[in-house]
Amino acid sequence: MKTIEQLSVDTIRILAAEAIQKANSGHPGMAIGSAPIAYAIWKNMKHNPANTKWLGRDRFVLSAGHASMLEYAMLHLYGYGISMDDIKQFRQWGSKTPGHPEYKHTAGVEATTGPLGQGIAMAVGMAIAETHMAAKYNVDGFNVFDNRTYVLCGDGCLMEGVAYEAISLAGTLKLNKLTLIYDRNQITIEGSTELAFNENIAARFAACGWQVISVPDGNNIDAISKALAVTKLSDKPTAIIVETKIGYGTPKEGKSSVHGSPLGDENIAVTKANYGWEYEAPFTVPEEVYAHFRTLAENCASKNAEYDEMMNAYKQVQPELYAQLMSDLDGKIPEAIANDPELINFSGSVSTRSASSKLLNVLAKHIPGLIGGSADLAPSNLTRLADFEDYSVENRAGRNIHFGVREFAMAAISNGIALYGGLRAFCSTFLVFVDYLKPALRLSALMGLPVMYIMTHDSIGVGEDGPTHQPIEQLAMLRSIPNAQVFRPADGKETAAAYLSALNAQCPTVLALSRQNLPTYEATGMDAMKGGYIIRKPKGTPDCILMATGSELELAIKAADVLAVRGYTAQVVSMPCIELFDKQTAEYKESVLPSVVRARVAVEALSGYGWHKYTGLDGAVVSIDRFGASAPAKTVFEKLGMTVDCVVDAALGVIKK
Amino acid sequence: MKTIEQLSVDTIRILAAEAIQKANSGHPGMAIGSAPIAYAIWKNMKHNPANTKWLGRDRFVLSAGHASMLEYAMLHLYGYGISMDDIKQFRQWGSKTPGHPEYKHTAGVEATTGPLGQGIAMAVGMAIAETHMAAKYNVDGFNVFDNRTYVLCGDGCLMEGVAYEAISLAGTLKLNKLTLIYDRNQITIEGSTELAFNENIAARFAACGWQVISVPDGNNIDAISKALAVTKLSDKPTAIIVETKIGYGTPKEGKSSVHGSPLGDENIAVTKANYGWEYEAPFTVPEEVYAHFRTLAENCASKNAEYDEMMNAYKQVQPELYAQLMSDLDGKIPEAIANDPELINFSGSVSTRSASSKLLNVLAKHIPGLIGGSADLAPSNLTRLADFEDYSVENRAGRNIHFGVREFAMAAISNGIALYGGLRAFCSTFLVFVDYLKPALRLSALMGLPVMYIMTHDSIGVGEDGPTHQPIEQLAMLRSIPNAQVFRPADGKETAAAYLSALNAQCPTVLALSRQNLPTYEATGMDAMKGGYIIRKPKGTPDCILMATGSELELAIKAADVLAVRGYTAQVVSMPCIELFDKQTAEYKESVLPSVVRARVAVEALSGYGWHKYTGLDGAVVSIDRFGASAPAKTVFEKLGMTVDCVVDAALGVIKK
Repeated sequence: MKTIEQLSVDTIRILAAEAIQKANSGHPGMAIGSAPIAYAIWKNMKHNPANTKWLGRDRFVLSAGHASMLEYAMLHLYGYGISMDDIKQFRQWGSKTPGHPEYKHTAGVEATTGPLGQGIAMAVGMAIAETHMAAKYNVDGFNVFDNRTYVLCGDGCLMEGVAYEAISLAGTLKLNKLTLIYDRNQITIEGSTELAFNENIAARFAACGWQVISVPDGNNIDAISKALAVTKLSDKPTAIIVETKIGYGTPKEGKSSVHGSPLGDENIAVTKANYGWEYEAPFTVPEEVYAHFRTLAENCASKNAEYDEMMNAYKQVQPELYAQLMSDLDGKIPEAIANDPELINFSGSVSTRSASSKLLNVLAKHIPGLIGGSADLAPSNLTRLADFEDYSVENRAGRNIHFGVREFAMAAISNGIALYGGLRAFCSTFLVFVDYLKPALRLSALMGLPVMYIMTHDSIGVGEDGPTHQPIEQLAMLRSIPNAQVFRPADGKETAAAYLSALNAQCPTVLALSRQNLPTYEATGMDAMKGGYIIRKPKGTPDCILMATGSELELAIKAADVLAVRGYTAQVVSMPCIELFDKQTAEYKESVLPSVVRARVAVEALSGYGWHKYTGLDGAVVSIDRFGASAPAKTVFEKLGMTVDCVVDAALGVIKK
Repeated sequence: MKTIEQLSVDTIRILAAEAIQKANSGHPGMAIGSAPIAYAIWKNMKHNPANTKWLGRDRFVLSAGHASMLEYAMLHLYGYGISMDDIKQFRQWGSKTPGHPEYKHTAGVEATTGPLGQGIAMAVGMAIAETHMAAKYNVDGFNVFDNRTYVLCGDGCLMEGVAYEAISLAGTLKLNKLTLIYDRNQITIEGSTELAFNENIAARFAACGWQVISVPDGNNIDAISKALAVTKLSDKPTAIIVETKIGYGTPKEGKSSVHGSPLGDENIAVTKANYGWEYEAPFTVPEEVYAHFRTLAENCASKNAEYDEMMNAYKQVQPELYAQLMSDLDGKIPEAIANDPELINFSGSVSTRSASSKLLNVLAKHIPGLIGGSADLAPSNLTRLADFEDYSVENRAGRNIHFGVREFAMAAISNGIALYGGLRAFCSTFLVFVDYLKPALRLSALMGLPVMYIMTHDSIGVGEDGPTHQPIEQLAMLRSIPNAQVFRPADGKETAAAYLSALNAQCPTVLALSRQNLPTYEATGMDAMKGGYIIRKPKGTPDCILMATGSELELAIKAADVLAVRGYTAQVVSMPCIELFDKQTAEYKESVLPSVVRARVAVEALSGYGWHKYTGLDGAVVSIDRFGASAPAKTVFEKLGMTVDCVVDAALGVIKK
């Protein structure tokens, strides 16, 4: 007689196989192999299908996102919003069951996964967030925040550098409520893991400060459950290494070919026989399985009810904390920020990274949930929150995170912090090293997370460190990302506008900030939030338009002066954020860039790639379409043609065309 | 009485401090702290200042590139081409001593470093290359290839995920001629490594299959030298962990502040006193130190002479191998390739990844040095060299490398292979995951290395895997990189053109290839090597120009048909490589894109960012400026507006403007 647990696991496996077969696309291997793991985790988790946003819930991240059907099967059986019709629509247009799990798209999915390794780093971010919120809000008798974070991954995730980075930091930070479950099936797409991944994983985790538990039989639900219980006793994060068989019980068990292709109808029939599965009709869930999961879900709901009771008492006993918590969770930006006189109080010569430093500290005062740090460059990025302490094992309430020299994990962890709720995450490094973290920034954008990326040293103005440290093509890379906004402010006031815009955005914002001092302009201001605006408007139709961002606004203004002497009028446009400019009304855009004026010059000390959208076939772009060079910043600007003369020449060239 | 070794180390330290002081910019901390390490390594290395390209030389990679003055001091003292004037010109425009070491720029520098972690991965690539070349060319009594690779790194490199990825692979591959020396000074920019990097590094290396040796006193040259000797006895790669003091002997010893700022004249004076340095005048090298290094250099030269003698004998005894080796090293592409009838023998419906597979195998036949692989996606990328074996511990002559799920390390290792000489490296993954490896591709471009990046699944044509797997902004990112070329071929013939172009380029080439089948066109051909060319030319001035790449060429051609029915003529342009098109003569470009025709439409199923350079203010771009979605490919194309109708509408819109 099969236990209800085994029957449930078989159901998950068959559901996954059948949905993938119907879609004729998907990854059955891990979904089938790790079904007992998923069953055990979810049974051990605090969660509530009827209240997917329960504050006290444990978090589950499927880092191996290709096993999406595993998660959808769990969501279906537990009674989240996934119907059997949704399961049948796996991987179809508009369905709730896309190829990889998507945050905001499917209730119960805590993070968008698929790009390997990042789920682990996001889970680390969630675990950091939990400790921080607990430190802020828990008081005697009220564990408002007391949840675990579970992340399920395979070999692929663990081979990725970003996972190692996050694992190393998690060990340093002793995130003992984090449990990683490693589905060790020893098979990758190209064959055995022996080919390329022969390390001692348990020893590696231990070296990184983790507790390690081994489960030799991935089909032993009890053993997995016991491991999950042990994990709660450690002061370290835990890795549970579970030996599994990819595509267990199918004719392709243990083979690479079961990883990413449907089994085929015949193989499914054989698999059903192997499992002793009685139902020929596809998409059958035995009634006793549904009943079992209903019982599990009821347990979930009653735990949620206990929590709600506690929260009601908390509200009474700790009204101020409660109010603050609600405000944090709401995420609304206090109006006081926009009215803070410090916000646009800039004058004289100041680098935008210094302006950013001042602003970030203003923000930190108004937004208790603001937390973040740098990939070991805080003294250069100027992103330390001066009035707050370090986040550490000893001080979980600290708001300055030392991410270490780990740009990619930093960004993915920031995503995890943002996903957790109640917090506003920022991270920082040199602009050129945005390359290292780009895959995580893409996920910020895809998930619509308002993470702030504070990227300083934004051009050849880096100077002596040379071409490896001077960004050239990075702004083009960033601007081409959908659902992200990139600001390159010209002075402190525009930096303030950039921050205000970032705070109110439903997407990530990148701030590209100067190392070197820049003037503060009369004409700049909050209009920068429109993305592009007029800095100098001549009478009548101008002879040309000069548009620029950041440090090059100065060149454009000075070039306009020179052109005036030579008898030509120039409209000067500051264009700190092209994404926002593109969203303005046609009328507004026409006023800033009158279509009749074809003599247009864009100036930016980085790659010109992308600027022709505004300069057209008749305009010119003064830019740097080569790598930089090591020399004092002023020299590099001159040698690479970022001078007033070059702008004037370009303008004259297009005016006379 | 100070030993000559100690005096030499002091000289290196003072030179570094003084050059950085003069430049008023640089990183004295590690250069000073690890001077004894550099001294010991270089003394143990096979190298020859008089012959920097000596085939038998050991390789040295300064992964912690910010300690560049350490390397320049060594190059100066050994008599490489770095004069004292060059040292004085540290970090100045055009000097041989830029902020971070630059390959091709400074003789003796084996790799451009600075972006942390990548030097380690490049060293792994060099070590792989050595074993491979040894397997191919060494015969009894003739160790043509028998060199070690040394890489010096700090905490920052080891925190980076790319370093872990490469370390894990190196352990699996038992690259026992690789020695990593870890300058463990326990200080990062934000403070103690305790803040963010508390793992047991020795245990981590051991878990990854490395031999680990500890040197507790980083000033003990003998101990370091002994460790370097022990390293040669293992069948594993070796990590030597050397405990050092950042900024040793300076008033800022052990402090973060010594990492990246000049010491200041007063501190240099104190440092000199601490060292017992007798020379007040800056940039003094004691004559006995020069003499000492002259002796060392003579030893180097005599080893090189022995090697040359062996090679002369090898030439006699193994004339065929010798000739092949010379041909490999020369790197010239055999003319036979261009004449191989298989090269453009395409017809019918075929995906460009399939075409690439065929072509890659043709290339492998003609180019014995062609070696590479995939980040565990070879069965999808179709990049396996069918007639050749796997590269492995047992078979170093194999030409298919299993990189594991490590895109970033894969690319950086490919750079290392290319740097070694005699080999042509390729690597592959899905186009969307070029994000993971971009920092290494940037270094390929900066170093001018002709690594081939074979990136398949090049659009929403990925289909069901959904937005995490569908590239959108990746082509814009790639095209904006200086000194790289990006091909998105429309069919097999254009794929052949892309490969021919890649082989002859002095820069990396990215091939963006389709998952889905595409038609083979009559009009396509080797003109694709011009980057853009006419596929259909109407009589007289066309009413519009339709330009497209890859899978969208079909849409452009069909749209032209529809437009013809409606009475409009369209010039159809295939634009597989905009970088090459931009390099053509003005006349040629005018013939392809006549400036009188302002009604222009670009079609590409990815972000439109960048296309306005060719469509201008009056044209239109049919593109996808949002993230993709999970559904069958055909559905996604339709839903996201990548249809003939949409192209026709866009064309009519701009014609009637």
